[in-house]
Amino acid sequence: MDVYQSAPDAYDFPLTIKQLLNRSKVAARHQEIIYSNKKRFTYEQFFKRINQLANVLATLNLSVGDIVAVMDWDSHRYLEAYFAVPMSELILQTVNIRLSPDKVLFTINHAQPKVLLLNSEFASLVKDYQFDNSSIEHILWLDDNGVSYESVFGDQNRRVIGEYEALVTAAEDEFDFPDFDENTIATTFYTSGTTGDPKGVFFSHRQLVLHSLAEAASLGMLPSKQGVSYGDVYMPLTPMFHVHAWGFPFTATMAGLKQVYPGRYAPDALVDLIVTEKVSITHCVPTILQMLIKEVSNRGQKFNGLKMIIGGSRLTEGLAKAALDCGIEVYTGYGMSETAPLISLTDFSINEPKMSEAEDISRRCLTGKPVLLVEAQIWSEVNQLLPTGKDHAGELVLRAPWLTQSYLKNPDASRKLWRDGYLHTEDIAYLREDGYINITDRLKDVIKSGGEWISSLEIETILSLHPAVADVAVIGVPDKQWGERPLALVVLKSDCQNTIGDDIKAIAEQAVSRGLIPKYGIPSEFKFVKELPKTSVGKHDKKVMRERFA
Amino acid sequence: MDVYQSAPDAYDFPLTIKQLLNRSKVAARHQEIIYSNKKRFTYEQFFKRINQLANVLATLNLSVGDIVAVMDWDSHRYLEAYFAVPMSELILQTVNIRLSPDKVLFTINHAQPKVLLLNSEFASLVKDYQFDNSSIEHILWLDDNGVSYESVFGDQNRRVIGEYEALVTAAEDEFDFPDFDENTIATTFYTSGTTGDPKGVFFSHRQLVLHSLAEAASLGMLPSKQGVSYGDVYMPLTPMFHVHAWGFPFTATMAGLKQVYPGRYAPDALVDLIVTEKVSITHCVPTILQMLIKEVSNRGQKFNGLKMIIGGSRLTEGLAKAALDCGIEVYTGYGMSETAPLISLTDFSINEPKMSEAEDISRRCLTGKPVLLVEAQIWSEVNQLLPTGKDHAGELVLRAPWLTQSYLKNPDASRKLWRDGYLHTEDIAYLREDGYINITDRLKDVIKSGGEWISSLEIETILSLHPAVADVAVIGVPDKQWGERPLALVVLKSDCQNTIGDDIKAIAEQAVSRGLIPKYGIPSEFKFVKELPKTSVGKHDKKVMRERFA
Repeated sequence: MDVYQSAPDAYDFPLTIKQLLNRSKVAARHQEIIYSNKKRFTYEQFFKRINQLANVLATLNLSVGDIVAVMDWDSHRYLEAYFAVPMSELILQTVNIRLSPDKVLFTINHAQPKVLLLNSEFASLVKDYQFDNSSIEHILWLDDNGVSYESVFGDQNRRVIGEYEALVTAAEDEFDFPDFDENTIATTFYTSGTTGDPKGVFFSHRQLVLHSLAEAASLGMLPSKQGVSYGDVYMPLTPMFHVHAWGFPFTATMAGLKQVYPGRYAPDALVDLIVTEKVSITHCVPTILQMLIKEVSNRGQKFNGLKMIIGGSRLTEGLAKAALDCGIEVYTGYGMSETAPLISLTDFSINEPKMSEAEDISRRCLTGKPVLLVEAQIWSEVNQLLPTGKDHAGELVLRAPWLTQSYLKNPDASRKLWRDGYLHTEDIAYLREDGYINITDRLKDVIKSGGEWISSLEIETILSLHPAVADVAVIGVPDKQWGERPLALVVLKSDCQNTIGDDIKAIAEQAVSRGLIPKYGIPSEFKFVKELPKTSVGKHDKKVMRERFA
Repeated sequence: MDVYQSAPDAYDFPLTIKQLLNRSKVAARHQEIIYSNKKRFTYEQFFKRINQLANVLATLNLSVGDIVAVMDWDSHRYLEAYFAVPMSELILQTVNIRLSPDKVLFTINHAQPKVLLLNSEFASLVKDYQFDNSSIEHILWLDDNGVSYESVFGDQNRRVIGEYEALVTAAEDEFDFPDFDENTIATTFYTSGTTGDPKGVFFSHRQLVLHSLAEAASLGMLPSKQGVSYGDVYMPLTPMFHVHAWGFPFTATMAGLKQVYPGRYAPDALVDLIVTEKVSITHCVPTILQMLIKEVSNRGQKFNGLKMIIGGSRLTEGLAKAALDCGIEVYTGYGMSETAPLISLTDFSINEPKMSEAEDISRRCLTGKPVLLVEAQIWSEVNQLLPTGKDHAGELVLRAPWLTQSYLKNPDASRKLWRDGYLHTEDIAYLREDGYINITDRLKDVIKSGGEWISSLEIETILSLHPAVADVAVIGVPDKQWGERPLALVVLKSDCQNTIGDDIKAIAEQAVSRGLIPKYGIPSEFKFVKELPKTSVGKHDKKVMRERFA
C-alpha cells in the first residue's frame, strides 16, 4: 500500500494558465484594464470577456492543439487572447509583425494556424497571402479605425467570422474551462535568429505559470523602488508578440495589477498614457527608452520614478545615466526568445553598501544576477564547467523550468540548442564573484538594431548578388540611437572599381520592396576594402572586423 | 509526429528541492547563516555541509523513501536537514517536541522513521522509548551542552552513530544529488488537530518548491516595508517542526537571504539576536509577539521596523497596536498544517488610499487576501458556492498546489478533508467585496493557547474519568496572554455536589504527569453548571457555550 496515496477527492492542481486568475478573481475584481485612450474596464469584466472570447472560439469547430495566430498592437484583445486561447486548450501564436512581409508569411505557413486574429492595420502584410492554400480557416477582424474587412478582403471575406468586439460582446459570458495536462503547449512564436529562416519556439502551460511565479518573486523581492509591488501600474513597451512581452501580462494579471495596453507605440501617446494612468513599471529596448526620454524632455518634464527593465539590447551607461536624470529607475533584464525570457536581473537590496553614482550606473548595465530557480553556468569550448572570474569567459549555458524544449519542426537547430542537458545561449560571458553575469561578446554575428535582430548572413546574401561584389561582410557597429546599425564591408571585383555605395544599396532597397528583408536591414554605411580578415579555417573573422570598424 | 517533441538533450526541469539552491549558488555564496551565538558560516560552507550531511546519511544503508526524523530547536542543523534529507530522496519528519511525550512517541511510531536526529535536550522525551521494538535504526546526536549520548542512553547507545557536528565535519564535502520525480514525498509531520490522535500530513518536492515560489512572490510584492526584499535578514520564531516554519527557511535560502536560527526561544536571547544580527523579518504566534514586546519594553527600547507575520492564532487589535507602537510592522498570515501553510496574507500596496490608524490596524488583524494561485471559496452546508459579503458566511474551502493530498494512513480523515475536489478547512468565513477573507468562527472545537492547539475532546475524556463528573465540556475562552485558555464546564453527579474545582483539576494534573496531555491543557477554570446546552441531535452545542461563557 502506498501510504502517501491521495484522498479520492483530492485535487491534483495542474499548473495551467487559468490558475493564474485565482487570486485576482477574489482580490482584484474592481481593478482596471485600459486600452490606450479607447477602452477601460474592470477585471470582473475582463474575466467575462475571456469567457466570451472562449465562447466565440468554441463555435469554430477547432481541435485540441489547433493554433490561433494574433497580429495586433499591444491591446486588451491581445491580453484576452493570452488567456482565452490557451485556456481553451488551443495554442496562441504571437506573430511578429515587425518582420518583413516575407518572414511574417513564413512564420504563418510554418506554424499552420487555423484562426487568425488580424488587426486591420496589418492587413497589408497578408494582402497577397494565398488563403485558399493556407491553414487559416477563420479570421477575426480587429479594428479601431472603422475599416471594414469587406473593403480589404473583397471576395476572400467569407473566412472572416466578424469583428472582434462585436463577436465578443454578443457571446455568452460564462465558460467552464476544463482542467488538462499542464504540459499542454500554450504558446508559440518565432525568433528571427542569426541565420536563415525564423525558428519557432513554444511553451507549455506549466512553463508559463512557473515563469510568472518566478518573475513575480524575482521582481517582487527587489525593493519597491525598482521591483514590482502591489499597487504598481503596468504597461508593456516590449511588444506582446515578443516573448509574451517578457511574460509580464501573465504576471501582472496574476498579481491583479492595474494594466495599460498602449496600442501602437507613438512617443506622445505613450508619455500621455504614462502620466495620465500613473504607469509605474514597464520594460523595453533601449531605442524605446531613447524615444521616451526625447519626448518627455521636449515637454520640459520628467518621469516620476517610472521603473523600467531594459532587455533585448545592451543598456549603455550613457543611456542609463540619461534615463536616471530623466526620472526613470532603469535597469537590466536578460533573456532570449528561447528562455521565455527571464534569466537574470540587476540586483538591488534594501540593505546595500553605499556606492558611487558611477558604480550604481555600472551595475544597472550588467547582465544581472540569475533569477530564482535558474541554473546559470559558464562552459569552456570543450563543455567544461568554468569557475567564476573575468579570466574564465565561456559560453553561458542554462537550465530553468521555462526554456523551450526544442525548435518547432527543426531537429538540427534543436540539437544545437540543447547539448549535454543545458540550453546553449551562444552568448559569451563570465560569472563575477558577486553573482553577476557579464556578457562580453554578443551572439556571434547578429546585429541588433532598435531591439530588432538583423541577420548579417541574410543581408550579405542579398548584397553578394550585386554583379560588382567579390566578397562582402555585414557587421554591427555601435549606434547611439539604434544600439547597432549594420555596416557592409565590400570587396569589389577588379573590373568594377568605380562602383559606389549607393549602387550596392540599391539592391538592398529592392529586397526591402520585395519583402525579403525589413527596411532597417539596409546597411547604414558601405565601406570598400581590399580584402576581408579571415580566420584560420578561411571564414570571415567578424571579431577582427568589429574591432577594426567599431 | 509530435512537432513539440523535446530535443534529445533537453532538460525536463523537475521541481525538486535541490533546484531552490540554483540562484544562491551563484548569487549568495558569501551570505551568512547564523546559529544563535554559537556558530556562523557562509552559504558556500552551507552547500558543503549539505553535501557532508548527505554523505553521512549515505553510509546508513537507507532506501528511497525512508524517513529521517528530527527533534531539535531551530538550528542550522535543522536547516541542513531541510535540504540534505529530501535531496537524498529520503523523507524529513519534523517532530513536534511540544506535544506530550505520549504524543511525541505516537508520531514516531506512526511515521516509522529509520533515523532520528536527536537534540540532547529532548532525550528525556524518548527516554522510555522501546528502541528495540521501534523502526529507529540510527540516532545522530545533536548537542550544544557537552552532554554525551553514552551518559543518556547507556547500553542503548549502539544505535547512536555519533555527534552531528563531528560526523558532518569528517564527511566528504562533495555529493552529486540525483534528479528524480518531483512528486516524491519530501516532508511529513503531525498536526495535533481537534480530536484524537495527531494526524500526519506530507508534502512533495514539487509542492514545497511551488510554495516557496508563491511565498516569495506574495511576500515579495508587498511594499518593502512589510514584505520580503533582497537584503532582509530572516529569523524564524515559529518552530521549524511547525509546517516547515511557514516554509520560510526554504524561501529564504532560495532567495539567498542572511538567516539567523535562534535555538531555544528565550526572550532575552531572541531580542539580542534581533538587534545584533539586524533581523528584519520573522513570523510567530501572538504569544511570542507578546513575549518580545515585554522584553524590549523592559529594556526601554523599541524594534526598528521588524517585519512580523502572525499566524496560528488570531492577532487581536490591541496586540497589533502594541506591536506597532513598539516598532514592529505586524500583520497576519493564514494557513494550517494541511496547507503547507500559506493561504492568505494582509494586503499592503505602494499606492493605497489614506486610512485611519484604526482602519490600518483592523486590516492587519483580518485573515488577509488569498496569495498567488490559491483558489479560496466559501461553501454553504450543502456545498454550494456562496457569493461575497458578510451575509454569506460558510466553510472556507481551498485549492492550491501545495495542499496535503491526504492524512498519512488515515483514509477516513482524508475523505473528510477532501470533498468534491476541495480541501475543507472547517473554518467558517466570508469573503469581503475587496478580497479579504474574514474567518468568523474558529475550527469547531479546538482551543488555541499560546499558538499550540489543545484538543477539547481529549481534555473532556480525561475529566470525564473523575467519579464525580456526570457531563463535561471544555471550550476556549479569550485570554489576554495566551489567546485562549480552556474552560471546563462540569455537570456533577447528583450525589457528588460537594466536589470542588481542584478535585477535578487533580485528574488533569495526573494526566500531565503521565505525559498524556501537555501542561497547558489543564483548564484554567472549572465552572459547575446544571446542564450543558445541546444541539438538535443531542450533541454538545459549543457555539452556545462559547457565546454564554466567553
